[in-house]
Amino acid sequence: MAKPTFQSPSGTRDLYPADLLRRRYIEKLWRDTSIRHGFEEIDGPTFEHADLYAVKSGEGILSEVFQVFSGKDEAEVSRIRGGANAPYALRPEFTPTLARMYAAKAGSLAKPTKWFWQQNCFRAEKQQRGRLREFGQWNCDILGGENDPESRARVDADCIACVVEALWSAGLDQRAVSVAINDRQMLKGWLLTSGAKQEQVPTIIELVDRLSKIGPVAFLEEGQSHGISNELLTVLLARRPTKEHLTKRIQENFESVPLGQADTTGTVKHFIDAMDSSGLLGEDPSTSWCMFDTSIVRGLAYYTGTVFEVLADGERAIAGGGRYDNLIELFGGPPTPAVGFGMGDVVLSLVLQDRGLMPEGDALMDALSRPSASYRPDVFVIPAGQTPADQEAASAKVRPLVAQLRRGVESKAYQDNSAHKPWDANRYDAATGGVPPMHARSSSKASKNIGKLLQDAAAQKAKLAVIVENAEEVTIKDLRTNTQDSSRTRLPDLGQALATRLMLV
Amino acid sequence: MAKPTFQSPSGTRDLYPADLLRRRYIEKLWRDTSIRHGFEEIDGPTFEHADLYAVKSGEGILSEVFQVFSGKDEAEVSRIRGGANAPYALRPEFTPTLARMYAAKAGSLAKPTKWFWQQNCFRAEKQQRGRLREFGQWNCDILGGENDPESRARVDADCIACVVEALWSAGLDQRAVSVAINDRQMLKGWLLTSGAKQEQVPTIIELVDRLSKIGPVAFLEEGQSHGISNELLTVLLARRPTKEHLTKRIQENFESVPLGQADTTGTVKHFIDAMDSSGLLGEDPSTSWCMFDTSIVRGLAYYTGTVFEVLADGERAIAGGGRYDNLIELFGGPPTPAVGFGMGDVVLSLVLQDRGLMPEGDALMDALSRPSASYRPDVFVIPAGQTPADQEAASAKVRPLVAQLRRGVESKAYQDNSAHKPWDANRYDAATGGVPPMHARSSSKASKNIGKLLQDAAAQKAKLAVIVENAEEVTIKDLRTNTQDSSRTRLPDLGQALATRLMLV
Repeated sequence: MAKPTFQSPSGTRDLYPADLLRRRYIEKLWRDTSIRHGFEEIDGPTFEHADLYAVKSGEGILSEVFQVFSGKDEAEVSRIRGGANAPYALRPEFTPTLARMYAAKAGSLAKPTKWFWQQNCFRAEKQQRGRLREFGQWNCDILGGENDPESRARVDADCIACVVEALWSAGLDQRAVSVAINDRQMLKGWLLTSGAKQEQVPTIIELVDRLSKIGPVAFLEEGQSHGISNELLTVLLARRPTKEHLTKRIQENFESVPLGQADTTGTVKHFIDAMDSSGLLGEDPSTSWCMFDTSIVRGLAYYTGTVFEVLADGERAIAGGGRYDNLIELFGGPPTPAVGFGMGDVVLSLVLQDRGLMPEGDALMDALSRPSASYRPDVFVIPAGQTPADQEAASAKVRPLVAQLRRGVESKAYQDNSAHKPWDANRYDAATGGVPPMHARSSSKASKNIGKLLQDAAAQKAKLAVIVENAEEVTIKDLRTNTQDSSRTRLPDLGQALATRLMLV
Repeated sequence: MAKPTFQSPSGTRDLYPADLLRRRYIEKLWRDTSIRHGFEEIDGPTFEHADLYAVKSGEGILSEVFQVFSGKDEAEVSRIRGGANAPYALRPEFTPTLARMYAAKAGSLAKPTKWFWQQNCFRAEKQQRGRLREFGQWNCDILGGENDPESRARVDADCIACVVEALWSAGLDQRAVSVAINDRQMLKGWLLTSGAKQEQVPTIIELVDRLSKIGPVAFLEEGQSHGISNELLTVLLARRPTKEHLTKRIQENFESVPLGQADTTGTVKHFIDAMDSSGLLGEDPSTSWCMFDTSIVRGLAYYTGTVFEVLADGERAIAGGGRYDNLIELFGGPPTPAVGFGMGDVVLSLVLQDRGLMPEGDALMDALSRPSASYRPDVFVIPAGQTPADQEAASAKVRPLVAQLRRGVESKAYQDNSAHKPWDANRYDAATGGVPPMHARSSSKASKNIGKLLQDAAAQKAKLAVIVENAEEVTIKDLRTNTQDSSRTRLPDLGQALATRLMLV
């Protein structure tokens, strides 16, 4: 008698120990980055009522999900046999669960609320390179809080900084990947001033989204059939109004570049300022991670502002996200500004492995055994200053300082070794100037009262407070012992001073 | 218009940040314990072909699972509408996936293979205290390797030691929980010598398993209806042949206790020896974790030898497991001895919370931020000895030493503080004699060639080797630098000597 053999369902994975360690490496990367950026982890059910997914994505999504039912309820079973869909679906994505959870407790949650999540998702589609039917997914979302254009731009930049930092930690840099960014409001404004009619805008955005799939001929034909002018279609085909690297230079000369001229709503200017204060603008195109690219619109109808994708040559997008200010209301919550991104493990694994950036053997085991990011904030940065000029300089320093502390400083020994790998133990070695990445936060409160800001730091269980006195100096306070330094620390010495107190080195 | 509201499916959980941290605390406990005991993590699909579950548990299991289908395959959908079950099921347990994965690669896997797993499982049943429809589960399994009674007993004890260590790490001790153990072979042998007929044995085992559910009256009635003698039923009702604490004393006087007299197959004697060398036998009943309890049979038909359950007052079993030597063959693999256990997060969480053993706030965040167990073995213990007497003493020391190193030594400062909590930072503080728990292994090879055993240690990426010279002394070799100490270390000094080299203190 032949022995039975059993296969895993197609598009799913059996992870033997060596595979599992690689998966854990990616999860650790995601979790550590999220924590250092001040996100808190949540989780929800693996399956939900199927209509939850239709609320966000329309009924069409229900043909893409695995259907689930208990088989215990006769009425339910007979409905399914009669042709109805099953009552539950395996989650194809986490955002509807997040929206449901946020809406249920919106009144009692922090403003903003920063949540991350990482588990598996499921899509009932054919397996292809970079696409499986069960896959790991990482989401970071920032919900609620101030809703003025400047605050929104800062929160957008915070999200992009988190995704960039994860890639940087994994050893990917601006030569390997880029973040392509667009703003739907800006695109819409530009389309209207370029001759599009209001009612054509959704069709045009949808066409632009499909351009790379359908090709230029179908793009022109479909556009013409919707009555869009040939002139506008030609400009769109050439990826106008602009595809521009976001560099320090663009910030200085914003009004003179095509992007600045197309920014009829003013949101992109705020966004570029926020990207700069997050340390995300390179000096020139060759060192810039990010570019503005109006061909990025992302198909999902629910995005309302900034949209972005992380791209690597020859692969599907590694990550994608954007602003979705209407979603929480759709799930029964209050009007809530929101922005987030998602990243899957399948494409990221391919990109890391292709570039020799996935450790093996004892290097992998050692990397996994390193301490995780601190769940308590290592550092809480507070603006102070005794004169109005110092106060202004201190306030302007908060975001750049938080960004620097989250990234850390690579040691000279690491940089000088041309064969270095991101998991090398000496990457942040203090002996040659390294500073390990820290969990850094600042207050979302507008208050300038240092006592209140220190209370906020303590409430968030921060270990150290960094009180910024001016553009060059800070005072360190240890919140665990409630002792404040009698002398100030100069900024270039800050990282190592903090690391020593946290015993990270 | 009323705003829509959405609920999670009943029996599933929304984990907000504070809930999630508690869940991560339990996962860290499980993962760290597994790693220190030499288990390697694996994972498989969240859903499997439904018939995979029927292979292990019979068709009955299919009424307890959530059914899954893609909806993309018309033939499949019409089969379901015609009354067939869906092709896939959400995993109600991991063991069938493990058996499938082991069977597929049995030829190339280590002997024994030690695997652990922790993810969610799903049961299509009504929610009750301690039972949810989606819940976290931890499994540890040891498969393959030597199959003589002594080796099997040692592997059984290794499994029980792992589950006991997890509870100990969480702050539970023998006053809070106990491990009730039975052996199906022994029970069967005893039933046959007590007047049961061969064909009645499965019925009797099944009746004993249901005794606490159906009560004594139904037990007697059903037993009588199967022709089982009143005399035997009365003995079984009184939980005979025995319910005995496993202590040092039982080991010394095994032949004179009822348990020893019932051990007609000799397996229990080996098992008690193995429990002792794993450090699991207390000095007397009040310090003993484990008891032999012939009323524990566990319903699952697939168990073939040792079975055990971890019990806490007033709750469902925290964990359960046993030996299942026939399962891998059932899944198409070679004949393979196997033993394992499973523990769920729901009951464990209740037990820890009821006893004040779940940290909160900064204590919880600090506990989660501590380094994980080392994925590389910290220590690999090798028997040596220059005389036959020393060799024998050294060999006998290997298992107790591995067990001690895995457990660590609690510091005096911690023990002296009557308000201590298991997550206190000073639990293993070196200044007052503490030694942190380590990832310790020994070779499964029978070889006495030290060179070969050192090669085995290096192949498993161990950091340090401890070469046992006799009953009192060892030599430490650092495998990372390939340097061996010139002088021996006495056993009472070993833990701290190792911790210093590993920089765990």
